[in-house]
Amino acid sequence: MADARIEKTQRTASLYFKGVTDERPYELWREFDPEMAKALSLFVTGDLYAREKLPHTTRQLVSVGALTVLNRPEELRLHIQAALNVGCLPEEIAEAIFQTIPYGGVPTVNTALKTFRQVLIDRDEWPLTALAP
Amino acid sequence: MADARIEKTQRTASLYFKGVTDERPYELWREFDPEMAKALSLFVTGDLYAREKLPHTTRQLVSVGALTVLNRPEELRLHIQAALNVGCLPEEIAEAIFQTIPYGGVPTVNTALKTFRQVLIDRDEWPLTALAP
Amino acid sequence: MADARIEKTQRTASLYFKGVTDERPYELWREFDPEMAKALSLFVTGDLYAREKLPHTTRQLVSVGALTVLNRPEELRLHIQAALNVGCLPEEIAEAIFQTIPYGGVPTVNTALKTFRQVLIDRDEWPLTALAP
Amino acid sequence: MADARIEKTQRTASLYFKGVTDERPYELWREFDPEMAKALSLFVTGDLYAREKLPHTTRQLVSVGALTVLNRPEELRLHIQAALNVGCLPEEIAEAIFQTIPYGGVPTVNTALKTFRQVLIDRDEWPLTALAP
Amino acid sequence: MADARIEKTQRTASLYFKGVTDERPYELWREFDPEMAKALSLFVTGDLYAREKLPHTTRQLVSVGALTVLNRPEELRLHIQAALNVGCLPEEIAEAIFQTIPYGGVPTVNTALKTFRQVLIDRDEWPLTALAP
Amino acid sequence: MADARIEKTQRTASLYFKGVTDERPYELWREFDPEMAKALSLFVTGDLYAREKLPHTTRQLVSVGALTVLNRPEELRLHIQAALNVGCLPEEIAEAIFQTIPYGGVPTVNTALKTFRQVLIDRDEWPLTALAP
Repeated sequence: MADARIEKTQRTASLYFKGVTDERPYELWREFDPEMAKALSLFVTGDLYAREKLPHTTRQLVSVGALTVLNRPEELRLHIQAALNVGCLPEEIAEAIFQTIPYGGVPTVNTALKTFRQVLIDRDEWPLTALAP
Repeated sequence: MADARIEKTQRTASLYFKGVTDERPYELWREFDPEMAKALSLFVTGDLYAREKLPHTTRQLVSVGALTVLNRPEELRLHIQAALNVGCLPEEIAEAIFQTIPYGGVPTVNTALKTFRQVLIDRDEWPLTALAP
Repeated sequence: MADARIEKTQRTASLYFKGVTDERPYELWREFDPEMAKALSLFVTGDLYAREKLPHTTRQLVSVGALTVLNRPEELRLHIQAALNVGCLPEEIAEAIFQTIPYGGVPTVNTALKTFRQVLIDRDEWPLTALAP
Repeated sequence: MADARIEKTQRTASLYFKGVTDERPYELWREFDPEMAKALSLFVTGDLYAREKLPHTTRQLVSVGALTVLNRPEELRLHIQAALNVGCLPEEIAEAIFQTIPYGGVPTVNTALKTFRQVLIDRDEWPLTALAP
Repeated sequence: MADARIEKTQRTASLYFKGVTDERPYELWREFDPEMAKALSLFVTGDLYAREKLPHTTRQLVSVGALTVLNRPEELRLHIQAALNVGCLPEEIAEAIFQTIPYGGVPTVNTALKTFRQVLIDRDEWPLTALAP
Repeated sequence: MADARIEKTQRTASLYFKGVTDERPYELWREFDPEMAKALSLFVTGDLYAREKLPHTTRQLVSVGALTVLNRPEELRLHIQAALNVGCLPEEIAEAIFQTIPYGGVPTVNTALKTFRQVLIDRDEWPLTALAP
């Protein structure tokens, strides 16, 4: 079973974070504590993200909404990239962010939109063409 | 256009909160300020929730995740009911809640699960049969 | 100077919390640590609340807004009573709460309004007559 | 009525943000979704900020306090400028920030004071002369 | 290795929560998802709490401080009991709570103290005798 | 007694922040309000931090945990330095940060670890040698 956990973890990490050049949390944890890095990575990516109870697109939009209201732009940046990698449209990601206005307020939405805009700029996908008339 | 806003607002409110017996925020706002109650309701339900950029099921799961990490059990209770009303499965709602563990931590997940359990008890849908072997 | 601090603290506490029957934080702190209770009370009420840089009405509306977005209904309940005691109108308190919608979102506003409504009920000042046409 | 909403929105935005050179949230929202940008702007600035239930000076001090405890320095920067534009004294703004110490703690007060200091530096109004003996 | 994780998890859970009659989070998780309940429990209690990098007393005081500022009284209640079970003195727990005043503010300290007082009442250890002159 | 407060405050500030080159909050407060700067400093450092109810090492680890979950990296930076100054080992500080994973989630842990790494780099104590095999 231990091997299956590692395999699920690596497969899901590849799916989500392929091409991502940001410092990866796993690297950071390992610099302080390799054992904790391994346990945390296996739990979060292997035991949780790899589950098949929700499509990856929906799962990532839930992450985007939660990270928006918590105001965690670095982690949000990772999951916006994961959302794009699993097939979410930019319009869907923006809508998940806007949907949080009544819950977490407007300033966290602004931070999330700026984070999203920077991801799109870095991917050379900005401005959004869907908005062209 | 004003009429269209009102119509969209009422139609979306009916879709989401049909059968919900909790005190509705609109009623609370109106007791303090009828004009603000109207403006806020038209904005949140008419200008935001009624948009078609995301399926209502996905939109509600985003709300569930955001309200979980913010620890807002009363509003979460409303949106868990909305999620069930638009067709989310209990397993999907539970998964949206669990998905927030790495972002908002475990205690807010516990509060959300207890809120969800109470909604299911109130609807006579508890315990979850999908878990039976 | 120590006597002046104590006098300012007692005078301001009387002004704010006259007639309040809720458990007072000072009593709670004292049950655990009388020395800390004294130091904390002198700092918060004597060194801060007693300052004359803002009118007490404005100071309390700032407190109401901050406690609304932080979702601290017990402390909010104390400061809504203080706001009424120093002369804020109910409409002004409600407006300070509504003003936080874009910053902290709607669910914390709902909790604050329910807290405010209960204070008004306890004071036999509910419903608000200013709303009558 | 729609025209009146637009007029109120524009008039209030001019009053608050005249001379502000920061990126304006409305511009950011519009890059992602012009329809949402319009609806959100009309609600926040037209339906809420334009109300006459509180003087603009008091309203802005409530915003300053709420944004301090929420730790939203970019939005706080906008509302500190709005507070100065509607006539709040620097000492009053500082006091609204200090007033939040017991509610949101000291680190958010520090961030707010640094944000405020930068606004004053940008306006060539630093250091505060009122403190000169 | 899997057996060692389970053993560490059970041993640490027994140490921390012996005699605790509150609903245990593991039971709640299991009602919704037995697989997630197991994975989460093994990670939190086995991979994290069981580590020997800090004495259990210090570890629990860190938990008490973090749960105080986050305002999570149900989880705090569990960890106050764990702190007492591993040998923390009531005065040390109260001090860990007071120490958070400058970071999270006073209202969360009040909630934590009320939670702590209730634990002591439930254990028939209230009032604190150490305060007697 | 006033002199004793000042003496305790200065002695504790020296113990905690010796060699720290960051802007000190006291300096910031004083630029806005010397009277408040003095009152706040005497309360936080003199009336609270100087107490002997917990060893300074434990007290600082509680601060580290609380500031991690609140996501206050500037204040955290100060208290990580204080923790090192009073004798906490780097491994203990890292463990206090990791201990908050279940309460405040992973992104705040990442921010705290990056803050800690920068402190160690600034002190020329990075990478941690304890991790070398």
